[in-house]
Amino acid sequence: MPQLSNKANLMPPSPIRKLVPFAEVAKKQGKKIFHLNIGQPDIATPETMLDALRNHQLKVVEYSHSAGIESYRKKLTTYYDSFNIKLDYTEIMITTGGSEAIEIAMMTCLNEGDELIVTEPFYANYNGFSCQAGISVKPVTAHIENGFALPPISEFEKIITPRTKAIMICNPNNPTGYLYSRQELEELRKLVLKYDLFLFSDEVYREFCYDDKEYFSAMHLEGVENNVVMMDSVSKRYSACGARIGALISRNKEVMASALKFAQARLSPPTFGQIAAEAAIDTPPSYFEKVKAEYVHRRDVVVDALNKMDDVFCPKPNGAFYCIAQLPIDNADKFCQWLLEEFDYNKQTVMLAPATGFYFNQELGRQQVRIAYVLKEDDLVAAMQCLEVALKQYPGREVN
Amino acid sequence: MPQLSNKANLMPPSPIRKLVPFAEVAKKQGKKIFHLNIGQPDIATPETMLDALRNHQLKVVEYSHSAGIESYRKKLTTYYDSFNIKLDYTEIMITTGGSEAIEIAMMTCLNEGDELIVTEPFYANYNGFSCQAGISVKPVTAHIENGFALPPISEFEKIITPRTKAIMICNPNNPTGYLYSRQELEELRKLVLKYDLFLFSDEVYREFCYDDKEYFSAMHLEGVENNVVMMDSVSKRYSACGARIGALISRNKEVMASALKFAQARLSPPTFGQIAAEAAIDTPPSYFEKVKAEYVHRRDVVVDALNKMDDVFCPKPNGAFYCIAQLPIDNADKFCQWLLEEFDYNKQTVMLAPATGFYFNQELGRQQVRIAYVLKEDDLVAAMQCLEVALKQYPGREVN
Repeated sequence: MPQLSNKANLMPPSPIRKLVPFAEVAKKQGKKIFHLNIGQPDIATPETMLDALRNHQLKVVEYSHSAGIESYRKKLTTYYDSFNIKLDYTEIMITTGGSEAIEIAMMTCLNEGDELIVTEPFYANYNGFSCQAGISVKPVTAHIENGFALPPISEFEKIITPRTKAIMICNPNNPTGYLYSRQELEELRKLVLKYDLFLFSDEVYREFCYDDKEYFSAMHLEGVENNVVMMDSVSKRYSACGARIGALISRNKEVMASALKFAQARLSPPTFGQIAAEAAIDTPPSYFEKVKAEYVHRRDVVVDALNKMDDVFCPKPNGAFYCIAQLPIDNADKFCQWLLEEFDYNKQTVMLAPATGFYFNQELGRQQVRIAYVLKEDDLVAAMQCLEVALKQYPGREVN
Repeated sequence: MPQLSNKANLMPPSPIRKLVPFAEVAKKQGKKIFHLNIGQPDIATPETMLDALRNHQLKVVEYSHSAGIESYRKKLTTYYDSFNIKLDYTEIMITTGGSEAIEIAMMTCLNEGDELIVTEPFYANYNGFSCQAGISVKPVTAHIENGFALPPISEFEKIITPRTKAIMICNPNNPTGYLYSRQELEELRKLVLKYDLFLFSDEVYREFCYDDKEYFSAMHLEGVENNVVMMDSVSKRYSACGARIGALISRNKEVMASALKFAQARLSPPTFGQIAAEAAIDTPPSYFEKVKAEYVHRRDVVVDALNKMDDVFCPKPNGAFYCIAQLPIDNADKFCQWLLEEFDYNKQTVMLAPATGFYFNQELGRQQVRIAYVLKEDDLVAAMQCLEVALKQYPGREVN
């Protein structure tokens, strides 16, 4: 039997899914599980988007242009313009989810063995995509004490080597919910200019900025037009994760021309999803106002409940729909497994994402979990009750 | 400005699209172009498939399982069973088009620097995907004289090295239309066993086998269950190229487990496309009978017309919807460009794919073009008339 590749062996399994077998056990035990472990919102997809497919007029489901349907790309420029991001449609390439935008950006900009600096905790799949591309991830650690703010630029400079090719941020951040300030972005601007690096900015949570804090995009930075590559997606914006429509955006013409060669090899992004996503641009502002108010409320319910628990600390984030909490536990992986296998409170339990999977050095996430506040208030209240009781009963309780 | 990666520079542009700027010129000149250059059929997508989306009941467009919707995978086993391919649904992973199945199979089975033997002429994007994965493509040349039959196994053995990891075929073949026989497959079976290689079999044209010739799949081979990986797609089967739904299929459990890790990183294949593709399995046999009869007729119109032209030779293929013709020309790229820029016959011209893009050694395709017979009979007749006149007028006429 032929051997598999080294990549097949090195490729990290999804940290979000490693608990799935234990969730199966919990289900068999008849427990109700509150799923706070994944970023799959329960929010309804806008009707504008769903109707576009109900009313489609296709006779032949053809390939679209490899860079996406032109009318969709043109309409997207008006969407970005509403965030004061001025783009020509040729600066937008439609991808199969934000995932493919990351994959293509990595292949376009980094050689095998090149280094990508990422602030940790980070979206775990950055690891997987880096493994695919043979890229070396170099973490700069953000800390829970200051709400996971951008680490000092000196920390980045410490690990820059001749192989460093790009810095990657996620803003608003998954998994921390942190929203980077204009000042933090301006500091990154100086850094990428000084060392001639690409700045990859994953901004798929743009719609979810709270408390009147300013959304400041990497695309707003001046003088780094050739350095910045933005990754985007409709998945979270319209609660349409399954549409698999994203975008790779850059004002660097060479990046766009080369990215298109990778896009041509895979022919085109999904036609159905593009039809839906094009229609989605007409989603009324009231939809987002309602969704945003709902998430702010959910965040407050979760974060306030967490901070009332003994020896628990959770900074209140200004964006996305995640928070990371510090818990009085010996080991987040063990604790999350125990919640599913051993624990119940009124036949209910909660599924969380151990933060170990979001750190390069897993020890840093040993006492942390990521909570996605993607359920309705009543369920979140019940889930927090479960967690509070669980922390009292957990045999591996350990206060930092 | 940061430098792009070596891959960005090495990545081949799509050979199918390099003529697009000249087609723009032809359009501006007011010429009608018969597009025989790409495999985008004009055949209607089955209503069963289109209706599934018109009637969708989604409220939230969620991620599906990374390996695809379970009910779809289970239903696909009945589809394959109708071709006497017995599968468990866990041996099927849904991908974003056949393209992604190829990408994931390559990353799962081959290391950078490993060699993949492909019969040429071959589907040009195998080159692009190999470049992405850092794989070295090693061609074994098939010849137009015997209709592009499988080259003798001794030709494969000549180029096998310790880095050879897999053999890739496309059956029925794009770009030649050749349908491999049971005997040819059995020879490949012995070869992959002897050298412990993977056998990648791209079988997306399965529905298009003509003249009562037997479709014999790599999945039918016995004793190579751990060697064979099949790539599939609904693109051509249901004329639904834009759905971007394919499949990676293998009985090798390690391959499937590792492929899933790559699939998890990109989260899921498109939900809308999967809904349509699941419904498509109920497409009545009459649909395929009609489509097949249409393609056989088109093939006969095109191939017979070609063979009546002076100094033109085109073997009649038994599958897919392509043929490769030998023309009395100095250079296929120049000729195809000339057809668009300089030539017209009654304000009409024809767009063909120069075969150079399908050969590793482009010289081999210098006098050949690929013709996709994806238009209605009247257009095909008119296109062949154009071509006949063009060959008489072309200043670079050169008989072999």
